[in-house]
Amino acid sequence: MKKVSVKLNERPHQYRVTVGHDLLKDCGGWAEKSLGRKGGKVAVISNPKVFGLYGKKVEKSLRDNGFDVFVWLMGDGEQFKNLGSLETALSFFSRNKLTRTDSVLALGGGVVGDLAGFAASVYLRGISFLQIPTTLLAMIDSSVGGKTAVNTEFGKNLIGTFFQPAGVLVDIGVLETLERRELTAGFCEAVKQGAISGPRLFDQTGEFLENYSPERFENFFSDEKFLSKLEKLLAAQIGFKAEIVMQDEREEASRMDAKSRKILNFGHTLAHALEKVTEYKYFKHGEAVGYGIRFAGELSKILEIFDQNRLKLLNDVVSRAGVLPETDDIKIEKVFQAFSFDKKIVNESLQWILLKDIGEPFIRRNSEVPKSAIELALKKTLQTKTDSNN
Amino acid sequence: MKKVSVKLNERPHQYRVTVGHDLLKDCGGWAEKSLGRKGGKVAVISNPKVFGLYGKKVEKSLRDNGFDVFVWLMGDGEQFKNLGSLETALSFFSRNKLTRTDSVLALGGGVVGDLAGFAASVYLRGISFLQIPTTLLAMIDSSVGGKTAVNTEFGKNLIGTFFQPAGVLVDIGVLETLERRELTAGFCEAVKQGAISGPRLFDQTGEFLENYSPERFENFFSDEKFLSKLEKLLAAQIGFKAEIVMQDEREEASRMDAKSRKILNFGHTLAHALEKVTEYKYFKHGEAVGYGIRFAGELSKILEIFDQNRLKLLNDVVSRAGVLPETDDIKIEKVFQAFSFDKKIVNESLQWILLKDIGEPFIRRNSEVPKSAIELALKKTLQTKTDSNN
Repeated sequence: MKKVSVKLNERPHQYRVTVGHDLLKDCGGWAEKSLGRKGGKVAVISNPKVFGLYGKKVEKSLRDNGFDVFVWLMGDGEQFKNLGSLETALSFFSRNKLTRTDSVLALGGGVVGDLAGFAASVYLRGISFLQIPTTLLAMIDSSVGGKTAVNTEFGKNLIGTFFQPAGVLVDIGVLETLERRELTAGFCEAVKQGAISGPRLFDQTGEFLENYSPERFENFFSDEKFLSKLEKLLAAQIGFKAEIVMQDEREEASRMDAKSRKILNFGHTLAHALEKVTEYKYFKHGEAVGYGIRFAGELSKILEIFDQNRLKLLNDVVSRAGVLPETDDIKIEKVFQAFSFDKKIVNESLQWILLKDIGEPFIRRNSEVPKSAIELALKKTLQTKTDSNN
Repeated sequence: MKKVSVKLNERPHQYRVTVGHDLLKDCGGWAEKSLGRKGGKVAVISNPKVFGLYGKKVEKSLRDNGFDVFVWLMGDGEQFKNLGSLETALSFFSRNKLTRTDSVLALGGGVVGDLAGFAASVYLRGISFLQIPTTLLAMIDSSVGGKTAVNTEFGKNLIGTFFQPAGVLVDIGVLETLERRELTAGFCEAVKQGAISGPRLFDQTGEFLENYSPERFENFFSDEKFLSKLEKLLAAQIGFKAEIVMQDEREEASRMDAKSRKILNFGHTLAHALEKVTEYKYFKHGEAVGYGIRFAGELSKILEIFDQNRLKLLNDVVSRAGVLPETDDIKIEKVFQAFSFDKKIVNESLQWILLKDIGEPFIRRNSEVPKSAIELALKKTLQTKTDSNN
């Protein structure tokens, strides 16, 4: 079992991410420790699929530790992360008379975590929040850093809060039942974090994927060595994310340095555009990030700041994460339009996060990058069939 | 002009409340100074009545200082402080493409301030928020302290955030057009703050009300001495509220001491019950607080901890705030039921904030107060006709 401490300027100032195998069966003890108090009500938010797999175990351990448990299952999928679900969650808390000293527990992936965290942050102006992420992506990314959100007709994650949990429990055992595409999506984010962190985390991620392919993941769970390597990798990934978050909790708009929270968006400008032009139905978020990494690498190489061999290595490690959905039918012009949409709503100006080397990200303004370079990088990244026919 | 600094552990760590006469005409300069930047978009939230009186002046000064101004007018009244209005406000920000470096300005009373602050706190996970309170109650109470909220079917202010503004502008000139009942409601909160603060603020408030009756308020606005006294009183009231907020930003549930934010709820247990049994239609909040103060005084006297002469003085100063709506028809049993509702939803246990002396509030658990004492205090406070007939 490994523990990653997240220290913050803002409340709750410090919490721990506990990573290990077969931890769900004592999640009640972990909850008590994280909250710093015995008993009280816990509103569990999950979805039918995840709750069907792990709900009973979680509920039993919470009850055995003296908690009153109330369960609300939301719909499974990004389309349920909306203001309607938020209102339903808040009504659920009110109906069950949760008070300021009770808490909310998210059992699920990013959708459940973002929605439950947002609801906890505004109910009675904020009650304690616990997270048990059940997807790889949620474990290494969305459950760390305190971003909560819902989607609206105007875009993804535009409404939400910064709200840190009291504790996060990562049980690597639940990855045994995670479907292959979710694994690939999660490992793409892991490769992204490796690429901006440095050779150490990048190589650790690359070597892990070389030995243990997501295509045959469920076969490895009886192998102690695999479990130990997986635990170490996740703890290292979470540690990196926590490190970035700790020194830029609110993602200050003005920061442009290599440690700013903004660099976590490496690969994300294209990812958001791809998700938007396919109406959020075709890609899993992490899959789109897979293309985003390749694109950022290509663009960095075209701008002559990133070495050809490094690019080859980067693309090789991305490919180990698994097969990504095809992109040959996506129109380059539509992607360009989506870039400018992203820019208008969220940022003041479009910025590109590029790589000088593994672990050396830097931010360049859109005005400093020729459109022709972006176009070429897009073609090389998305039009794989055309390329191989030439 | 007076300035009250509010220093906080949480963001934005410090902001100023500027109090003075005829300040609206340069609110653009104040906004620029408070935000620490020039220009950008400002979404002004107000209601038709207030905007009709002061909107043009505010809009002109903002535009003259280089801001792009967008105006959304919400319905006037507590019933519009709901999740539907929140959603409309957020859509309004999105449609006008506000970014993380733009801001929201509330021009109005508590309803506008609470709703606008909540919307600002969750849009893009929080953008800058400015407040120009236009009621006495909002000036001395709701605009200081960072509580934002909406009402739901389950109760008032159960959903919201703690979110501090970048600046608050109090122009005492706008009180000239405030209706008499709003003035009385605001002064009841002022008397409450005096009573828990100490003889200095209590006497200042009492003497002001003796010289300048809310019944004839609009007559005084050409009198320089009145304006100077009003400015000083408001700055002192705001200073007291800020002092309490600064050392207990989040109103910690466990605190029971005389400086905890909880003591600001002096007079509020009965006030909330009165508002609830009359379905939030009969009293203005501050009027209900007027009765709440008298009740807390009576109860303290019945429990033999508060002197008869002090109680007389307290009631006398409350009466100077103006005539309160009659309460003889309100059933005592219904008030008792409403007490226990308040208890179940928001707190773990009902607590009474009592007075030993002016400036010496203390908190007593419900279990330590005989029901008969509460009943007697309620009768003495609410059944004024029965009393005078005996």
